[in-house]
Amino acid sequence: MTSKQLYMHQALKKAWKYQLRTYPNPAVGCLILYHNEIVALEAHQKAGTSHAEVLAFISAYENISQTKIDFDRFDAQKAHDFLLSLEEDFFADCVVYVTLEPCSHVGKTPSCASLVAHLKPKKVIIATLDPIKGHDGGVKQLEEQGVEVEVGVCQKEALELLEPFLIWQKRAFVLFKIAQTSNGKIGGGYLSSKESLTHVHQLRAVCSKMIIGGETVRVDRPTLDCRFTGDNAPDIIIYSKRDDFKRTIPLFKVKNREVKVLDKLDFSKPSFILIEGGEGMLNALKEDIDWLLQYQTPKLSAHSSPYNIDLDLKFLFQERKGIDLMLWSRVN
Amino acid sequence: MTSKQLYMHQALKKAWKYQLRTYPNPAVGCLILYHNEIVALEAHQKAGTSHAEVLAFISAYENISQTKIDFDRFDAQKAHDFLLSLEEDFFADCVVYVTLEPCSHVGKTPSCASLVAHLKPKKVIIATLDPIKGHDGGVKQLEEQGVEVEVGVCQKEALELLEPFLIWQKRAFVLFKIAQTSNGKIGGGYLSSKESLTHVHQLRAVCSKMIIGGETVRVDRPTLDCRFTGDNAPDIIIYSKRDDFKRTIPLFKVKNREVKVLDKLDFSKPSFILIEGGEGMLNALKEDIDWLLQYQTPKLSAHSSPYNIDLDLKFLFQERKGIDLMLWSRVN
Repeated sequence: MTSKQLYMHQALKKAWKYQLRTYPNPAVGCLILYHNEIVALEAHQKAGTSHAEVLAFISAYENISQTKIDFDRFDAQKAHDFLLSLEEDFFADCVVYVTLEPCSHVGKTPSCASLVAHLKPKKVIIATLDPIKGHDGGVKQLEEQGVEVEVGVCQKEALELLEPFLIWQKRAFVLFKIAQTSNGKIGGGYLSSKESLTHVHQLRAVCSKMIIGGETVRVDRPTLDCRFTGDNAPDIIIYSKRDDFKRTIPLFKVKNREVKVLDKLDFSKPSFILIEGGEGMLNALKEDIDWLLQYQTPKLSAHSSPYNIDLDLKFLFQERKGIDLMLWSRVN
Repeated sequence: MTSKQLYMHQALKKAWKYQLRTYPNPAVGCLILYHNEIVALEAHQKAGTSHAEVLAFISAYENISQTKIDFDRFDAQKAHDFLLSLEEDFFADCVVYVTLEPCSHVGKTPSCASLVAHLKPKKVIIATLDPIKGHDGGVKQLEEQGVEVEVGVCQKEALELLEPFLIWQKRAFVLFKIAQTSNGKIGGGYLSSKESLTHVHQLRAVCSKMIIGGETVRVDRPTLDCRFTGDNAPDIIIYSKRDDFKRTIPLFKVKNREVKVLDKLDFSKPSFILIEGGEGMLNALKEDIDWLLQYQTPKLSAHSSPYNIDLDLKFLFQERKGIDLMLWSRVN
């Protein structure tokens, strides 16, 4: 592995921490080197807030100048304005690694490509070009301003990172979440680390809809909110033939939430669908699921059962979440 | 994460690839930077062959000089002699990251500390000092020759890497191996990747003894050799109350192997014990097991069962082995 690949891997790993949480934006990571030392490692965290490159330049500024900024770094407009106000060659000795071509598109935030072109770092290394038409052109903008650009470092990994984003351009991206012991046992109280629970709530906070099985609603009487993060609770679809649910079940009492009971699901609309359910749900929807997310708690258990289902996977990315292991897979 | 930690992590990851395979030596990784580019990333691979630092200096030489060596790099004496024959300042611009203090001890191979002190790289960064009395003193040797040394980068991770080595100084280090699906199902044909199978055979090749349950011998009629690596097959202890095993079972027919049937096990002797067995074995020996090694194949399965056992783990290290996930845990 070259140093270049190593740095790009760090940017990719950082982006995976925010995988899906940036919906409807792509997950993007950015690392900045200054005289061969890492001065920034950031990722885009939430749609409507500063992009990865912007957060990274702000961090780099803080590290190089040894000065803290005094405004909200997630406010993209303020962050852009601040960076554009710095002396012109402030980042001249920096090398920027970014997992996706800086956007040329002016959306909720100004274009990153024009910002980076203005800041003129020594070099910008990009894992993959932006595959969305109208969002590309960032490289051209950089090169026109005389910034050296290299494209294609760790491209394969960068495209795996982008897979959900590419899917939800056209239809629903469907994630099924499983919390289990390391020997596959499912059931109450296994999801041990607070970090894993927080992560589930972060996904709930951004998904378009959450789907849950009727049996789970009847038996577990869940709340399905985002109390660990303080975000608004997601809208719920209960996938069930009958609507015989007592409205005293906590999930019905969450404010500002829509709950529908449906016996037919439609995944044609561009969206991010999060499914939490039991073996029956996994079996019923296995043809519709794009990715599986497993939280494995560090124990073997003699109790309860694993899901008894045949499903071929491709492991995509794994990392530790507190004491747990978080494992992302594509359903083949 | 600083660049320094990032480079040390790479050395640690490389060492984990040879975890236990270096028995009775510790697993050690080494990375060399030359003008901030990685020119070597190596690990000690097998006792009696070149240490990590030696392999790394050889690789660095090849990369810097763009010349291939024409002798066996694993022959420690030849490798040392070659490195000592280079012009004195050949590695003067190199920074060396090594996960363990270079050995001052002259064993099967010459001391690495005296070699590194002679080669005089710009700096040597060490994750942890050698905890074995009589093996320490490497840092002192380096500093006496005027080499700049820094100790303690990623020390916690380095000590986890060394844990088996520290245990087998005093008693048996006991590893239990499990091959399973990602939902914990155990049984024939799940261990899918050739890389995982090869890794099992690499561990069998170096272990002091392999322990297997009587039931497995009767039902599976295994061979338990190292045909994927061409190494000598390990000696076997069948843990069983009765010795009613047909000598036509393949494992008895492997040449140069000792097979014992014992109903009592002794883990007091410094050694590396590899256990492959079923739920009964895991349950019977769970108090004796130090680490668990799980190979998870990328699928969920509806067939067979997981091990039904309660066991608290601490995940230590995970990496992909081909398409599989390899997960090392400490048994708590």
